[in-house]
Amino acid sequence: MKRIAIDMDDVLAKTTHIIIDRINSITTNSYTYQELLTGSDTYKKEFYQHYLEHNSFLWEPGFFENIPVNEDAIEVVKKLSEQYEIFIVSAATEFPNSLKEKLIWMEKHFPFITWKHIVFCGHKYMIQADYLIDDHEKNLYTFTGTPLLFTAPHNLHINDFKRVNNWKEVELLLLD
Amino acid sequence: MKRIAIDMDDVLAKTTHIIIDRINSITTNSYTYQELLTGSDTYKKEFYQHYLEHNSFLWEPGFFENIPVNEDAIEVVKKLSEQYEIFIVSAATEFPNSLKEKLIWMEKHFPFITWKHIVFCGHKYMIQADYLIDDHEKNLYTFTGTPLLFTAPHNLHINDFKRVNNWKEVELLLLD
Repeated sequence: MKRIAIDMDDVLAKTTHIIIDRINSITTNSYTYQELLTGSDTYKKEFYQHYLEHNSFLWEPGFFENIPVNEDAIEVVKKLSEQYEIFIVSAATEFPNSLKEKLIWMEKHFPFITWKHIVFCGHKYMIQADYLIDDHEKNLYTFTGTPLLFTAPHNLHINDFKRVNNWKEVELLLLD
Repeated sequence: MKRIAIDMDDVLAKTTHIIIDRINSITTNSYTYQELLTGSDTYKKEFYQHYLEHNSFLWEPGFFENIPVNEDAIEVVKKLSEQYEIFIVSAATEFPNSLKEKLIWMEKHFPFITWKHIVFCGHKYMIQADYLIDDHEKNLYTFTGTPLLFTAPHNLHINDFKRVNNWKEVELLLLD
């Protein structure tokens, strides 16, 4: 059985959506996810500058608890889990408060994946799997299996990997 | 640079020592670590029966916070980290409260190993490394590198791996 490693933030979870809400609230702006995807470089640059200045909320208790699930993620991961071994691999050890919250989040939304198949780490390059679905190129460049880049506003300029724009595309690519 | 994956409980940390204290306190017995190593099979069997019945403290907040560090672990891991890439790999996702505590514990005792090289997981068989130092045979049987069995009372009957009884023996084996 082939093994798929799946990232959490911006792959299973709509983390950037919540980050946008927080940045808008802190800086009294009105950034939108859609405009981060399609807007000008200036728009994006300005947003990510705000983000770098004001991202301490990532370390706060509660931040990861209520992030919405990405569209079709539950349904497609459920189907994948019937044909592949699924590991959830989240670079989360930088955020000590997030760890328990991420386990609770997984249990709530993906109860068919147990703690036995959840990995929290810093680097991901020591993970052995056949596929890695991730939004961060740094994880994909060092991956020894087949990397799949899950589209997020911060990775639109990356052209080095097979790209999947949403979970329906993952389904088409990996399921019969 | 070769990579060593190192377990936490009963390898870096004297977890069984604290478990013995808790079991003694719950069952009003007076088990000792030394007797668990050298005592009769009946003695051990009785202890592990108590442990299976009364181990809910493992899930309690605070349990992992104050576990003492194993003898020579800090000094030898420090030396190893100069010649090897070190990953700490703890099968901890079963214990949601332990995760943050284990990060704090690592920062307190092993500040030279950052969150980037700490992994919390269920299974360990998807970890790529050259060596795995672990007290649980289930992790060693599925490891793709060189397994090293770190002696603990529960693994004395295992003869399938190169055994290291303490950190001084690890130093002799892996350092020039």
